[in-house]
Amino acid sequence: MDGERLLSRNARAMRSSLIRQLTGLVNRPDVISFAAGSPNAGTFPHEQLRQIHNDLVDRERGGVFQYSVTRGNARLIAAVRDRDRRLKGVRLGSASTLVVSGSQQGLDLVARVLLDPGDAVFVETPSFIGAMASFENVGAKLFEVRCDRQGMDPAHLGARVAEARSLGHPSKLAYVIPNFQNPAGSLWSRQRRREVCAAANQAGLLVLEDDAYGELYFDGVDSADLAPLKAMPDSSHVLYLSTFSKILAPGLRVAWVHGPEPVLRRMEYCKEAADLCTSTLGQRLVLEFLRRGWMPAQVGRVRSFYSAKSKVLKAALGEHFGRLARWRVARGGLFQWLDLPEGVDALALLHASLEADKVAFIPGAPFFAGKPRSNSLRLSFSNVEDENIAAGLSRLSRRVRRALA
Amino acid sequence: MDGERLLSRNARAMRSSLIRQLTGLVNRPDVISFAAGSPNAGTFPHEQLRQIHNDLVDRERGGVFQYSVTRGNARLIAAVRDRDRRLKGVRLGSASTLVVSGSQQGLDLVARVLLDPGDAVFVETPSFIGAMASFENVGAKLFEVRCDRQGMDPAHLGARVAEARSLGHPSKLAYVIPNFQNPAGSLWSRQRRREVCAAANQAGLLVLEDDAYGELYFDGVDSADLAPLKAMPDSSHVLYLSTFSKILAPGLRVAWVHGPEPVLRRMEYCKEAADLCTSTLGQRLVLEFLRRGWMPAQVGRVRSFYSAKSKVLKAALGEHFGRLARWRVARGGLFQWLDLPEGVDALALLHASLEADKVAFIPGAPFFAGKPRSNSLRLSFSNVEDENIAAGLSRLSRRVRRALA
Repeated sequence: MDGERLLSRNARAMRSSLIRQLTGLVNRPDVISFAAGSPNAGTFPHEQLRQIHNDLVDRERGGVFQYSVTRGNARLIAAVRDRDRRLKGVRLGSASTLVVSGSQQGLDLVARVLLDPGDAVFVETPSFIGAMASFENVGAKLFEVRCDRQGMDPAHLGARVAEARSLGHPSKLAYVIPNFQNPAGSLWSRQRRREVCAAANQAGLLVLEDDAYGELYFDGVDSADLAPLKAMPDSSHVLYLSTFSKILAPGLRVAWVHGPEPVLRRMEYCKEAADLCTSTLGQRLVLEFLRRGWMPAQVGRVRSFYSAKSKVLKAALGEHFGRLARWRVARGGLFQWLDLPEGVDALALLHASLEADKVAFIPGAPFFAGKPRSNSLRLSFSNVEDENIAAGLSRLSRRVRRALA
Repeated sequence: MDGERLLSRNARAMRSSLIRQLTGLVNRPDVISFAAGSPNAGTFPHEQLRQIHNDLVDRERGGVFQYSVTRGNARLIAAVRDRDRRLKGVRLGSASTLVVSGSQQGLDLVARVLLDPGDAVFVETPSFIGAMASFENVGAKLFEVRCDRQGMDPAHLGARVAEARSLGHPSKLAYVIPNFQNPAGSLWSRQRRREVCAAANQAGLLVLEDDAYGELYFDGVDSADLAPLKAMPDSSHVLYLSTFSKILAPGLRVAWVHGPEPVLRRMEYCKEAADLCTSTLGQRLVLEFLRRGWMPAQVGRVRSFYSAKSKVLKAALGEHFGRLARWRVARGGLFQWLDLPEGVDALALLHASLEADKVAFIPGAPFFAGKPRSNSLRLSFSNVEDENIAAGLSRLSRRVRRALA
């Protein structure tokens, strides 16, 4: 049976991301890997989760393993809304909330209920590869918007919307990651958040704000600087997406979206046919963790862990890459971006580095919707032992010098 | 912000199923409900799952809450393949396997990688509402195929394929549930399985075989009668879908698909952008349950439980509906189908029955892709206490008599 012949148009274009393709290569135990983007499993509160699991089974027996409603556990939704209001200043107004099976599902559902083939989506330069895959899987057309040290350029967003219109692409959505973006680790200024929120509103776009990393800020950051677009006065056009994957544990697959009910209701219908419901056990573990008041201490521990690791990375970068690359030190999240000198191809560097030095990272090129900066790369420090960070960067810097020679 | 304006074409057509819409009505504690299609939580092995959870956390600490690979846990895949070969005679040949987040995700991924808007999908009369929603959400066109006591009519399948072609709908997929279908509880004959498998092959269709209920057969059934289409010699065009939701626990969200690698690879790419991975914890709980050899006894208990309940239902049906309705006694699964006399509208009956008698069921109409038989209904007995089965059916039969009067 020739399965290829029967594939849908969308499926013919589907690819695995370069990151996933590299997983086998870069996760070998003998490799110092700055590649894996996953949080460090040492930050997952396994003893507390075990205790909750036991208590839930004591109290509810099989019930905790039953189906649940598609919209999500109502008490979990209430807890998440309360927490986002209090901690992040999120303005919910008339917005409702949907629990999703990880924020990747949130991205996918937004894509499916908003985007027809050929519709324009406006993304940062660079942007998150998993979101771009969701948009492209429904046939959307990505338009890169220029970014500077403050974040997305609102004037360029307007220009790109006009360009898309002139090319016949209906403009639907801007996708933004203002806090510690994967891959670039960038942090938008407060002013830029206001400006992009307003520019999108004026252009009639919905905004999908992905805030997976906002709580993972390092020492010295003023958390008021992290207030999402969804905390702005005129943000009813913003869909806000966040997750328990980085602050608690990703294997539970629990995330959530706030947004206008007409959109969320369609996302709920789409989810009903996509996976019926998010893991009941996952939702209950998270809810109980919140109810017991354990989250503030948990997030504090996670922040300290990554904050300490980022200092080791910062020192090692300064020592080994001082005149070899340009970077802005990430102030939160899991990622550090590096721009190598023009002419260094990061993919070729990866192959050489893996083979000769047993050091891995992710080349920057796949994160660009438009023309890639092939001399850029992403370092993830979450899973590298402190003592290996300097050793890995030392070897990598020698490899870059050799490429330049 | 007018979210409606921005919806995709597919999203505009998305609806919640009648079943989900009725959930609030029919799950009131004072109602005897034959409506809920979920398995009975009393069959979920919560003590064993708790024990496994504790052992996993002991051994692997946070690791059991980490992300996992999109394709699914490799040891779980090996275990599932081995089990399907041994127990069901499934012929895997060159087929590969993908773990999915519940069989609903399997349906959705198949729809997304095979179906373009307007493509034809051939379904039983009646068929599973969740699958039809997945197909319709990507714009596919459903073609009902006639069914008789043996199963789907292969000659009519051929005729419908020709009809679809003449109407300009490319034919891609036949969707079948040969074992104890939701909703009709029907069981295909062995011969019919061979004939439909061959007819689909000849028509160049892939077959999606949904076997969620095959292990839930009641006393007196010869399990050899349940061998799937995927156990036939020429079944490389069959995608086989099954799940741990009915034999173990649905809240874990773990199911699997066997099928041709070109299709499964695209499903894996699509899943990568749809939810990244199936719950790591869910997969590990299932794998460990299998590895400890606990599944045969578990499935035996589940079978006994539903077998006993089905006998209570059978007796009560005979007592109260003897001359009021036609039915074939379900020989497995969770559902009993009933055809009421012509002219009785099951939806009107439901409203009257709920209000006056506090008895709920699901009207049959939404399960028809074509012209509905509005005098049919689905009874689920999994969550009705034995002592309530007769009481509920007695009240329901009086309500039917009144409707006929």
